Amino acid sequence: MAGAAPSEEALRRALAERQAAVDARRLQAAVGSGGGAAREEMRQAVGNTLERKLFYIPSFKIYRGVAGLYDYGPPGCAVKSNVLAFWRQHFVLEENMLEVDCPCVTPEVVLKASGHVDKFTDLMVKDEKTGTCYRADHLLKDFCKDKLEKDLTLSPETAAEFKRVLAVLDDLSREELGAKIKEYGIVAPDTKNPLSAPYPFNLMFQTSIGPTGLSVGYMRPETAQGIFVNFKDLYYYNGQKLPFAAAQIGQAFRNEISPRQGLLRVREFTLAEIEHFVDPEDKSHPKFVDVADLEFLMFPRELQLSGEPAKLTKLAEAVSKGTVNNETLGYFIGRVYLFLTRLGIDKSRLRFRQHLPNEMAHYAADCWDAEIECSYGWTECVGIADRSAYDLKAHSEKSGVPLVAHEKFSKPREVEKLVIVPSKKDLGLAFKGNQKMVVEALEAMSEKEAMDMKAALESNGETNFQVCTLGKEVVITKKMVSISMEKKLEHQRVFTPSVVEPSFGIGRIIYCLFEHSFYTRPSKSEEEQLNVFRFPPIVAPIKCTVFPLVKNQEFDDAAKVLDKELTAAGISHIIDTTGISIGRRYARTDEIGVPFAVTVDSATEVTIRERDSKQQVRVGIDEVASVVKELTEGQSTWTDISFKYPSHIGPQGDQE
Amino acid sequence: MAGAAPSEEALRRALAERQAAVDARRLQAAVGSGGGAAREEMRQAVGNTLERKLFYIPSFKIYRGVAGLYDYGPPGCAVKSNVLAFWRQHFVLEENMLEVDCPCVTPEVVLKASGHVDKFTDLMVKDEKTGTCYRADHLLKDFCKDKLEKDLTLSPETAAEFKRVLAVLDDLSREELGAKIKEYGIVAPDTKNPLSAPYPFNLMFQTSIGPTGLSVGYMRPETAQGIFVNFKDLYYYNGQKLPFAAAQIGQAFRNEISPRQGLLRVREFTLAEIEHFVDPEDKSHPKFVDVADLEFLMFPRELQLSGEPAKLTKLAEAVSKGTVNNETLGYFIGRVYLFLTRLGIDKSRLRFRQHLPNEMAHYAADCWDAEIECSYGWTECVGIADRSAYDLKAHSEKSGVPLVAHEKFSKPREVEKLVIVPSKKDLGLAFKGNQKMVVEALEAMSEKEAMDMKAALESNGETNFQVCTLGKEVVITKKMVSISMEKKLEHQRVFTPSVVEPSFGIGRIIYCLFEHSFYTRPSKSEEEQLNVFRFPPIVAPIKCTVFPLVKNQEFDDAAKVLDKELTAAGISHIIDTTGISIGRRYARTDEIGVPFAVTVDSATEVTIRERDSKQQVRVGIDEVASVVKELTEGQSTWTDISFKYPSHIGPQGDQE
Repeated sequence: MAGAAPSEEALRRALAERQAAVDARRLQAAVGSGGGAAREEMRQAVGNTLERKLFYIPSFKIYRGVAGLYDYGPPGCAVKSNVLAFWRQHFVLEENMLEVDCPCVTPEVVLKASGHVDKFTDLMVKDEKTGTCYRADHLLKDFCKDKLEKDLTLSPETAAEFKRVLAVLDDLSREELGAKIKEYGIVAPDTKNPLSAPYPFNLMFQTSIGPTGLSVGYMRPETAQGIFVNFKDLYYYNGQKLPFAAAQIGQAFRNEISPRQGLLRVREFTLAEIEHFVDPEDKSHPKFVDVADLEFLMFPRELQLSGEPAKLTKLAEAVSKGTVNNETLGYFIGRVYLFLTRLGIDKSRLRFRQHLPNEMAHYAADCWDAEIECSYGWTECVGIADRSAYDLKAHSEKSGVPLVAHEKFSKPREVEKLVIVPSKKDLGLAFKGNQKMVVEALEAMSEKEAMDMKAALESNGETNFQVCTLGKEVVITKKMVSISMEKKLEHQRVFTPSVVEPSFGIGRIIYCLFEHSFYTRPSKSEEEQLNVFRFPPIVAPIKCTVFPLVKNQEFDDAAKVLDKELTAAGISHIIDTTGISIGRRYARTDEIGVPFAVTVDSATEVTIRERDSKQQVRVGIDEVASVVKELTEGQSTWTDISFKYPSHIGPQGDQE
Repeated sequence: MAGAAPSEEALRRALAERQAAVDARRLQAAVGSGGGAAREEMRQAVGNTLERKLFYIPSFKIYRGVAGLYDYGPPGCAVKSNVLAFWRQHFVLEENMLEVDCPCVTPEVVLKASGHVDKFTDLMVKDEKTGTCYRADHLLKDFCKDKLEKDLTLSPETAAEFKRVLAVLDDLSREELGAKIKEYGIVAPDTKNPLSAPYPFNLMFQTSIGPTGLSVGYMRPETAQGIFVNFKDLYYYNGQKLPFAAAQIGQAFRNEISPRQGLLRVREFTLAEIEHFVDPEDKSHPKFVDVADLEFLMFPRELQLSGEPAKLTKLAEAVSKGTVNNETLGYFIGRVYLFLTRLGIDKSRLRFRQHLPNEMAHYAADCWDAEIECSYGWTECVGIADRSAYDLKAHSEKSGVPLVAHEKFSKPREVEKLVIVPSKKDLGLAFKGNQKMVVEALEAMSEKEAMDMKAALESNGETNFQVCTLGKEVVITKKMVSISMEKKLEHQRVFTPSVVEPSFGIGRIIYCLFEHSFYTRPSKSEEEQLNVFRFPPIVAPIKCTVFPLVKNQEFDDAAKVLDKELTAAGISHIIDTTGISIGRRYARTDEIGVPFAVTVDSATEVTIRERDSKQQVRVGIDEVASVVKELTEGQSTWTDISFKYPSHIGPQGDQE
């Protein structure tokens, strides 16, 4: 917040207050009567299935775990690698991106340049007796919410005050947060002990590189910096042509003070990031036309501020009206929409929300988050930002290596350039030891300052001149400096590219996908609900299961043949030869989202059953692998297959 | 190879063997008498190409880098992800392994249990004036080698002494190392300052989890521990059946004291690890027969100790003779051999070396390294160890959670069990405060000790008994303890599984693959050598390039159609529309190992050229994507394609 202009500050507060009111209304609508409980119940149901089926496991569970660290168990791990493979196909391959793979261990200088060493912090308070740490804003938030929900004696004025605090929570300075905590007498929730004043805690995991202990390193908080520092090499690799994009998939780390929200806020996570480098003077995109007609929920600044909901918007319109800053940013918004919905994210619970001015870094040209609604509320899963030239400039300055692009002119262009030539001899005589500072100040003049000085020197022969590094004005005479505008031929334009950055939180996307894919259906016995994940075939951890209908040699041999063929085709599958009923076996595979089940009831033909429709078709045993491969790679849909092969209503019905 | 017709198989082998023979001769010629220099030259040539083509980049280069950290640039990153995809297909899918994905940040307790906190160290010495650190063994090694190579005045006795030191280097204790350094007067190589005594330096990157600073964590030095701590869940997930394997791919970290050897010894690297859990009483493997006939270079202990070279050995023989401890270990050795050679590792430069007794952990049953010869010498790339029950037992003890398997008996078995019942009353009277120690010592007796005592008590009424915790003998009388063997019915056997662990250093495999795939051929001009990487299609970073023969609309349009079709088929490719000669364009793609080049010289038909043979065939434009897909996925070989399609001797010849 430091350094914000007062008017901007006031604006931010106003914005934040409105946003809070909007959020409150939205939440109320969603929750309805008892919505919170319904959400909680839904989260429990999904969570139980996920944990029971080892989609994920709290890490180091036998040692009672570590907050904010999770393992992906077998089906979760398969979903993750499918999502990443699809990401590579959808972005890297389709857009010819340059994928790189950089280490997690990062020396301090890189993260100093990026600003993370100084600014990647949360404000923390400590229990003064036990030393337990809390996020200061979380305590204040919980206190206000709790009061509003449970304290029936609250005066309307106090209630309004608490609401205002909740609205501006993200904008409170260290001092303001501390003052509020003191004013409300907030104590440590577990012990009721007094709390320290808030102080910043850097969220990076710190370590030491090499044996001396002198070389500080951090576990990277994002993968992007690895791309920025390689810009020069990548630009040459790309034949010195813009635009181009580099991409990286990898682990990132944030040492959260007190992780909450299960899989959504964790201390280690997989990011997939794209840095698309583009000429700041031309942000058009040749393939924008491919996504221009897409229509989806957009939530621009204006709607958020006026308290209206997100609105179905055509992407072409959002770009042409200037709601989205430029075509390249718009193109990536469209591609992200396609990526998420093809994975199985529900369109009606996906929106693109524009950052409010107070959320956006000062250098950013525009920024949109793909937010997915889950039981925790609307969750930021992909950030798509036009970060202008900020990152490349920061690393250029810190490293001294120019990270720039060149536009060669087809013929040289004549340009006027300011030329300032200080006369060191005369300046030396006049300023002695201070000469250097005066020379530097003269050379640093802007075009306007220089031309003003030139005019003053020509009319008066001398002029006063403020030298900041000396802290005083000096008198400059005509012979001390020559100032002129000269015409020069330039053969190229040298500039720092802008970068458009789509950054994907893979774990969050996967968690939302789990919730959006989950449903239950009644079982035959009507006593229990059966759990199903409706993963699309590309996402499904296992593509098909093979069940011999009953235990006999013939069917077992046929299953073995299928096993070999599916393996050779690279299709993950399970052979289930347990003797339990077909209905139970279906239920088991539905619960981990297997889209196709193959029942072997002859040595030559089998039935394939689709998970959600429960339709079955008869397919020759030698065609099974290629049919399943077509279905999972997207060359055929189930509809295609059900037209092509005879349908089947067999004895091996489901459990209904 | 599995499933291919024998004749084809035989042909392939013959071809591959011939190729290997040619390679070997070439290498021999290259290394010749001045092997060291030739190797260095070879390393330079490969290294230059790799760095120029951005296969890898020293990390954070613009900040002058960090020793032991490298980025994979675009082609390197693609090779890496192809190698990992093949690893998943060859191991995880083929063997139905349970893949998991655990965090890198690991709490201290886990690595305390595994032994890493106490034992994962290297001995380090410090320049006493500057504080610069060195590995103690490296300094001693360099000193001895240097003396042997350069000191012509060396007496035969001293030379023999230096050779002996080099031979036992890895076995020297901290004190012995220090003594040798002192004896030889070794000083800091850069400053000639005196050195400190050696002291252990833990190679793990340490950090702190959460904000308190009290919770120590490390960046994992291997991925295996994540699997061990999840054993219980994974065993249940697998239906409580043994054997089963879990697998994990991920980053691991070692804070090397002074990284050397470029890409081979780095501070952060990708590991792919398998933990195969098996009943210690039955280490047979049902699929061993599939690999039994493989024959390759094996280097068992005996050969190493007798100074003989590695020998071509049939795997079945090595297992049946007991050279390899058991079938399961043998099976994985065979699978690793297939994995590496299918990736393109030269058979004649790959050997399986058994650990010498001094290299092996005390608990290990047997251990073999897949070593690949490259310009740095024979390099450990995969370790395949039978670690017995060590890891699971260590975590059981530390966590208190039993990590065991159960064998249910089909009918209960009668077993005799030793029952020792101390009479606490009588012991209390006799030993008072020492009673507890005596009771514990009695209960801890082995079956033999107990039966001896029983006999003595029956014949003498009393006996002497050593209680270690008291440090003395006590007299035990008949009434103080009852000892008997009782028959019990047992329904199951409870045991800790053994684990066979193949652990792959992916970066090292890739680096060796780069060297084994590299060759040069003369250019047309004879002035320069052209660089080629003969990557197999599955490994190649880019599967094909598309060149319009000359610039015209018709060919460009055809190239665009191909672009779309190749993308849809998921095939990474480059469209090269630069106007330069076809020969030059071939040279460019050869240098990054692209196996197939498609030259567009009509709107309906194109030529496809294979990189190494430089043969060309004519293929219809609509068939290109499927032909390249078959070739890269291994359904067809180039030989198949060159039989199927007409060959072509076109104007677009290579540069010879």
